[in-house]
Parts: sequence; C-alpha cells; structure tokens
Amino acid sequence: MTKKRIAIIGAGPSGLAQLRAFQSAAAKGAEIPEIVCFEKQDNWGGLWNYTWRTGLDQYGEPVHGSMYRYLWSNGPKEGLEFADYSFEEHFGKQIASYPPRAVLFDYIEGRVLKAGVRNLIRFSTAVRWVEKAGDKFNVTVCHLPEDRTYTEEFDHVIVCSGHFSTPNVPYFPGFENFKGRVLHAHDFRDALEFKDKDILIVGTSYSAEDIGSQCWKYGCKSVTVSHRTAPMGFNWPDNWQEVPLLQKVEGNTAYFKDGTTKDVDAVILCTGYKHHFPFLPDDLRLKTANRLATADLYKGVAFVREPALFYLGMQDQWFTFNMFDAQAWWVRDVIMGRIALPDQATMEADVIDRVTREDAGEDDYAAIWYQGDYVKELIDETDYPSFDVEGACKAFKEWKGHKKKDIMGFRNNAYKSVITGTMAPMHHTPWKDALDDSLEVYLQN
Amino acid sequence: MTKKRIAIIGAGPSGLAQLRAFQSAAAKGAEIPEIVCFEKQDNWGGLWNYTWRTGLDQYGEPVHGSMYRYLWSNGPKEGLEFADYSFEEHFGKQIASYPPRAVLFDYIEGRVLKAGVRNLIRFSTAVRWVEKAGDKFNVTVCHLPEDRTYTEEFDHVIVCSGHFSTPNVPYFPGFENFKGRVLHAHDFRDALEFKDKDILIVGTSYSAEDIGSQCWKYGCKSVTVSHRTAPMGFNWPDNWQEVPLLQKVEGNTAYFKDGTTKDVDAVILCTGYKHHFPFLPDDLRLKTANRLATADLYKGVAFVREPALFYLGMQDQWFTFNMFDAQAWWVRDVIMGRIALPDQATMEADVIDRVTREDAGEDDYAAIWYQGDYVKELIDETDYPSFDVEGACKAFKEWKGHKKKDIMGFRNNAYKSVITGTMAPMHHTPWKDALDDSLEVYLQN
Ligand SMILES: Cc1cc2nc3c(=O)[nH]c(=O)nc-3n(C[C@H](O)[C@H](O)[C@H](O)COP(=O)(O)OP(=O)(O)OC[C@H]3O[C@@H](n4cnc5c(N)ncnc54)[C@H](O)[C@@H]3O)c2cc1C
Ligand SMILES: Cc1cc2nc3c(=O)[nH]c(=O)nc-3n(C[C@H](O)[C@H](O)[C@H](O)COP(=O)(O)OP(=O)(O)OC[C@H]3O[C@@H](n4cnc5c(N)ncnc54)[C@H](O)[C@@H]3O)c2cc1C
Repeated sequence: MTKKRIAIIGAGPSGLAQLRAFQSAAAKGAEIPEIVCFEKQDNWGGLWNYTWRTGLDQYGEPVHGSMYRYLWSNGPKEGLEFADYSFEEHFGKQIASYPPRAVLFDYIEGRVLKAGVRNLIRFSTAVRWVEKAGDKFNVTVCHLPEDRTYTEEFDHVIVCSGHFSTPNVPYFPGFENFKGRVLHAHDFRDALEFKDKDILIVGTSYSAEDIGSQCWKYGCKSVTVSHRTAPMGFNWPDNWQEVPLLQKVEGNTAYFKDGTTKDVDAVILCTGYKHHFPFLPDDLRLKTANRLATADLYKGVAFVREPALFYLGMQDQWFTFNMFDAQAWWVRDVIMGRIALPDQATMEADVIDRVTREDAGEDDYAAIWYQGDYVKELIDETDYPSFDVEGACKAFKEWKGHKKKDIMGFRNNAYKSVITGTMAPMHHTPWKDALDDSLEVYLQN
Repeated sequence: MTKKRIAIIGAGPSGLAQLRAFQSAAAKGAEIPEIVCFEKQDNWGGLWNYTWRTGLDQYGEPVHGSMYRYLWSNGPKEGLEFADYSFEEHFGKQIASYPPRAVLFDYIEGRVLKAGVRNLIRFSTAVRWVEKAGDKFNVTVCHLPEDRTYTEEFDHVIVCSGHFSTPNVPYFPGFENFKGRVLHAHDFRDALEFKDKDILIVGTSYSAEDIGSQCWKYGCKSVTVSHRTAPMGFNWPDNWQEVPLLQKVEGNTAYFKDGTTKDVDAVILCTGYKHHFPFLPDDLRLKTANRLATADLYKGVAFVREPALFYLGMQDQWFTFNMFDAQAWWVRDVIMGRIALPDQATMEADVIDRVTREDAGEDDYAAIWYQGDYVKELIDETDYPSFDVEGACKAFKEWKGHKKKDIMGFRNNAYKSVITGTMAPMHHTPWKDALDDSLEVYLQN
C-alpha cells in the first residue's frame, strides 16, 4: 500500500502544530503519512513572522502579516504555553508574562527546530487552487520565486492559513476625499509614523485597544476611538476619548453619531478580519463568523461536508498555541485511523450543539471556560500532554482584572506557568517605558 | 451549431475595447459570439475607476487601483483619443489636453454607454482559475458579494487584466526599522498626507516623476529622488534633488551611494509593476518584461503557445486607448474567422522580429514611432477607423519637448486632435495652481 499523502496549507502556529503532531507520533515509532506543508512566506511562524511590507509582497501576493513593530503579547504567555515545550525549556529559565513578538517567534521556532520538521515545508509556495477529484484532492501551487505552478494529489488537506490576515474594511462617507491616511490595522506597522498626530480608531477590537495604546506610548497627540455599540470603557489616559460611531469625514474632520466632531490626521480601521480562502471552491470552503463555535466543523476541525478536509485554528481565540496543538493531535489521529469520525448526522449535531452551548454563555468568562473545555475535550482523546487548563482559564481571568484596573499597566503583571508550575518574574521595566522590544532586552531579567 | 463563448477578463480600457469591438461588428449586422466579461471591481474603467482603498478591498481581493487623487493625464489626450469616439463627440466641444482622471473616466465610460455593453459584464466577479480542458477553457470565478464560486466553459479567453496593478517592491536594508511610512506608488492616494514632509522617492518611472510633482504641488517640504542608473534630469524646483541609489535607511536617515544622506519622513517606492496572473497555470501564463515587444504574443496579442488565448494591453505604453482598440478589433476578427492565424513557426518568428526591431531603436522617439507603426499595422487589417497615427507620434514628441522645457508647466500646452483635426483650447488655469481636479472645474473652458 502506498502511503497516504497529506497537504498542510500554512506554516504558522497551526500548521507547525500539525507538523509537530505527526513528528511526535513518528518519534514514538508510528508510521506516519507523507506530509507536505505549503507556506507562501519565505519563513515559518505565520503572523509572528514580522514583515515591514503592506499590501502585496515581493511576489505580488497579499501580505499575510498583520503584526506591527513593538507588539507585545496581549494576553499572558501562561495561556498559550505548549504543553510539550515549556518557556523554561526553551529559554533555560522562566521569563516575564507578556513577551514581545520577537520573543514569541523565537519560542515557536524553538519547538519545531527541535522537532526537525523544516524539511517538510515548501516555502515561498502559495496554494492557488484545490479541487476534489474522486477520492483525492488536487492541490495546485505556485513556487513564487520561479513563478512556476504545479499540481499534486493528496488524500487529505489541512487548512492552516489563519483568519487574521484578510482585513474587513468598511467604507464611511468622505473616505474618498479624506486628506490623510486611511488604513486598516492589517497595514499598521510603526507607531512612530503617528507621533504628534491626532488619530481616529474605528472599532473596539483587540487591535483597537492595542494599536491605540501603542500610538499613545510612542507619542501620538491624541487617540479618539469610535464604537458602534459600546465603548471599551477602560480607564484611558487623558488624551484618549471614546466616541459613538463615525458618520462621515469631511476634509480632516470626523463627525460622530452624537453630533461631536474631531479633526484627525489619520484613520485606523480596527474593524476585524475575514475568513478568506481564495484557493477553495464552494464545496470545500468554510464560511463562518469569527466565533468560538464555528460553522460546519465537527469537533471544530473536520469539515462536515467533506470530512477528508480539515481546518485548524479557525475559531476566535482565547486559547491559541496549545489549542492549535490539541486540534493538530486530534486531526493526526483521525488521519492515522486512531480516531474514527462518526456519521454525517452525528457530525452535524455536534456543530449545532457547540453553537448552542457557546450562545448560552453570558460573558467573557463563560467564553474562556467554554474554550478551555473544548481544549480539554480534544486533548483527552489523544496523547497530547495534558496540562492545567483550569489554571490557564484562571490566568485569563486575572488578566482581564488587571486590564480593568490599569489598561496601560496590565502587562506589568506575572502569572504562574500551567505547564511547569513556576511563577513568572516581574518584567524589569514597566511596559509603557519599555521602548526597546528586542529579544535581547526583554530577556535581561 | 452553438455559438462560440468568449470570456473577457477585466473591464478596464482593454476589456471595454474588446466589448466595443464585438458590439460594433454586431451593429453592422454580423453575428457575434456569446460574450461574458468578468470584472472583479464593482464598476468598469479599470485603473481609471478611482478607489480610496489600498492593499485588499472590501472582499479581501487585492485592490486593483494604482491611481491617486489629483491625477491628471501624464501625456496629451491627443495620443489616446478613440478613433470611433472623439472628445468632441463626448463633451460636445473640444477640451484641454491633459484631463484629470475623472474627465478621462467620463470619456471612457461615454463610449461604452453609447455602445450599450454594460449588460455583458459580470461585476464584482473575480476570476480565480483558468484551465484548458480539451478544446475548451474552464474558467472558475467567484462572485464576491455572495462569496460563491462557479465554473463555465469558453472557447476563447481574452486576458485584459492590466499590468500596472501588482507592485514591484524591492527591499532596502533598514526598511524593517524605518520610523515612518514605506509605501509603493500603488498605495499612494493623497499628496496632502505628505504636506510639510520630506519625502524620498525611489525610482525614475512616470510614477516617480508624477508623484513627486504632486507632492511638490500640494506642499511637501522636499522631494529627494534616488535613481539606480541615471537621474531624470528635468529642471526641478529648488526643494527637489536627485541622488544616486539608496543604500540603506537607519532611523529616519537615508544613505545614498555617493555617501550623502537625507533625513526623510516617508519613502515612496516608484519601482514599477509586475505582469501578474495568479489565475493562470504555467501553460497559459504570459511571462514577459514590461516592454513594447512582449514575449510570446503573436501580433502582440495571440499567445503563441495556445493561440485560442489572447492578451490585450500587455505592452509598455506610449499609445493606450487607441492601441487597445487596434488590438481588440484584430482579436475580434481572428475569433470571428475574418483573420487567420498563421502556423506556429510564423507566429514565433513574428515575436522575435518585433523584439529585434524594438531593440534596434535608439531612443524614446524611435520607441514612439515603433509603437505607432504597430498600431497602424493592426488597424490596417480591420475596420477600426483609421486615424492620423503620425500626428499622434508628433504630439508625443512635442510633449517630450514641453516636459524638457518646463516639467511643472508642460500640462499647460495644447495639441491638435488627430481624429477631428481641432486644436485643443489652453486650459483656464496653469496645472500647478489648479488644485481642484474635478470634472466640473476642468470643463469650465
Ligand atoms: C495583530 C495580532 C496580534 C495577535 N496577538 C496575539 C497574542 O498576543 N497572543 C496570541 O496567542 N495570539 C495572538 N494573535 C492571534 C494569532 O491568530 C495566533 O497567535 C496565531 O498566529 C494563529 O496561527 P495560525 O497558524 O492559525 O495562523 P497564521 O499565524 O495566520 O498563519 C497562517 C500561515 O498560512 C500561510 N498561508 C496563508 N495562505 C496561504 C496560501 N494560499 N498558500 C500557502 N500558505 C498560506 C501564511 O503565510 C501563514 O504563514 C494575534 C493576531 C493578530 C492579527
Ligand atoms: C498611476 C498610473 C497612471 C496612468 N496614467 C495614464 C495616463 O495618463 N494616460 C494613459 O493613457 N494611460 C495611463 N496609464 C496607463 C494605464 O495602463 C492605461 O490607461 C489603462 O488603464 C490600461 O487598461 P487595461 O484595461 O489594459 O488595464 P486596467 O486599467 O488595469 O484594467 C484591468 C481590469 O481588469 C480587472 N481584473 C484584474 N484581475 C482580475 C481578475 N482576476 N478577475 C476579474 N477582473 C480582474 C481589474 O479590476 C481592472 O478593472 C496609467 C497607469 C497608472 C498605473
């Protein structure tokens, strides 16, 4: 019998989790399928692979990166720690709780370097089109540096292409005549571009909160945040205001729903992202809102209408890296025949059940616990090292309290690892004064 | 016999020329094939359909538009006039020679409204993938508002997707740490964003010249243009300098090859565009440099390796609208059996011959005449109304002289229509003082 062939699309945290899942089975002596991971960027790490580029990249492909300079983890690292590869193992010591991007990139990379899976990845290779043909998937890709397309056949496809990369960009009247820059958070790169500027942020997402805070930290003149339904309501600094929804801009003046106006130099749309799979036809394409219980995915991963196809990391995320791991181990076990998928009706009922349970939750705490339970459910069915998921939920809860107390200071707190039980050190510098976000400086604890 | 089915990809000036070509045959009583034009934007006009958006659009597709506010034609309108639809016919009078974008959009639209071809276009529909299957092409598209993909079969495909939309974006050391905005001309929208700023432009393309001039006109502090091979050498204003190639940036300081430096607030890469067809596999995809004699296109339009496939407007352009017309009429006649394609060897020889002749030309004037001859060659073989192509070449020549004399004043000149023989009026306001570029104001002559 020839080996099954598996295509993984994307080498961000989800795709890397999938590679590590298969490699860990192989390391324990199992025979694993042939695996090809296609990654359109020239390095791994997904969103954590920083790029100064915006719009289209050196090959004319949409730039994947949505991260920006000086980005620090917006949640405690204790919530995302890999159960099979702790921060202490990687750094040789415990580190503070809100690492900047470069530090987390290093950590993500450490595990897959150790696993030795880089050779399974075809970099600079964009998936162009996937089609089902009989029992197989035809996957057509383009090797971007050579501008060469080719097609290969696979038994399974695992989509790990992320969903915080294709911006949702609404129009407001007057944008076509605004006399400054209008950009989406996806294209935000350096807060210093907005030093001494009056900026308008539209939206109340994490991006709104974090980009506003960054611009404030790096010296913008004022931050105005416009919300559709409710303000974020944190205890903002003096030059920060929250206002109702933007109605229009005229010249440089923004008009809000309560009749107030504000002259601004730039508009930053923090209006979320879309699940976007331009390489998939209708019968294979996930269409879902950004929520914890996605549409059409049994156990949050198997596409009910075509269960040889899987999606990783498509949920809205409290849990990230270790949730992707839980999913990856589970998908691996389905593909390797260790877990059997139930019949169609059962899978569909599972989707509905998850939606119902999510909808019953009353607040963010319920949501955190809901996703924690999901992670536990999956890891209980595989050999992924179990860890203190409740502990992680509690860290998230503390984190929310810390934000409420001091939105510009919450990153100065420390939490206990749910993998090793060690307490994180306090960081050597308060976040608002730590202008250098390099790995070298961060690790000076 | 069932009718042939023709797919046109793109409803910019080239795609619209193709629609008009078929419609004009139908108007003369011929039976024409069934035509479907797919256009990913929600309106026609291609690059002339201005958008404030950059990066990705409301559907997550790469934004096609590369034009910006206050853009005026960079060559005399007498060089691009439609032979079957003069400016006088459209505006009811002769107009000045360098119309702003909105005026040219209106003119382009006027002809196709008159022709009544809008119903042949499926708007907001992006072509995702094209494949040859036997004698037919399978064209898979996505209707973006509904996020719905479908596939249809065609006998011919005519690619009119343009080639000034996918930016060529080089890296220079330090870009990842530059403390301002780095953008490509493709994402430039409003010169007022750069008021009172020191800007660095990389490149000596039309975009370099025109974006620099615009920023100057709208009040930037200084323009520094960095060139790889030679300066543009115009008689620039005092706050404009030309310097050798950028080596690196550090903080906000740019370092040039001659050892000089300049502190700048923004870097605008005017480094050209790529021919980019992510919807085409290798056997159908044109790969060519941006030049007058493209690779692999017989008569500049028929893809020699698969001559049921055509490309329009893929040349570098002195001539634009009327050249697209010449090509569209010619392609129409091949498809309708009025012109026969020769054998493979003859087509390949034609490509080589065109390249050789282009390479033999010594300067821009030779290039203008070379392309003028090409236009004449095509229109002589169809019923496209012949016009005074030499006259257009002469207008281009005069234009170059006017630029040499006064780069900030060349748009104040007027030329004679090669279609109607009428002299254009002088514009009512010198370009540098005409800050309002609306159609209403421009037409106040
Ligand atoms: C601004 C921002 C800040 C964030 N901050 C945090 C944080 O502090 N902590 C946290 O835990 N999470 C954070 N996240 C969440 C983030 O989603 C996850 O951390 C993680 O990156 C998701 O991993 P992924 O592999 O699912 O997707 P991604 O990281 O998006 O990786 C997807 C990969 O697929 C590739 N790809 C896409 N399309 C194709 C194609 N057609 N062909 C080939 N390859 C393709 C991409 O190039 C990319 O490498 C943040 C997200 C954003 C946008
Ligand atoms: C900044 C700038 C200034 C210019 N100024 C002038 C000028 O002053 N005078 C002049 O004569 N020329 C000018 N040009 C040249 C310009 O190329 C032509 O005028 C003309 O727009 C080319 O027409 P086109 O139809 O070939 O391509 P485009 O105008 O680029 O139109 C291509 C169309 O194809 C569509 N498309 C692309 N991909 C897909 C897909 N996958 N599915 C469906 N639809 C798709 C696009 O949305 C677009 O509508 C300028 C170009 C630029 C970039």
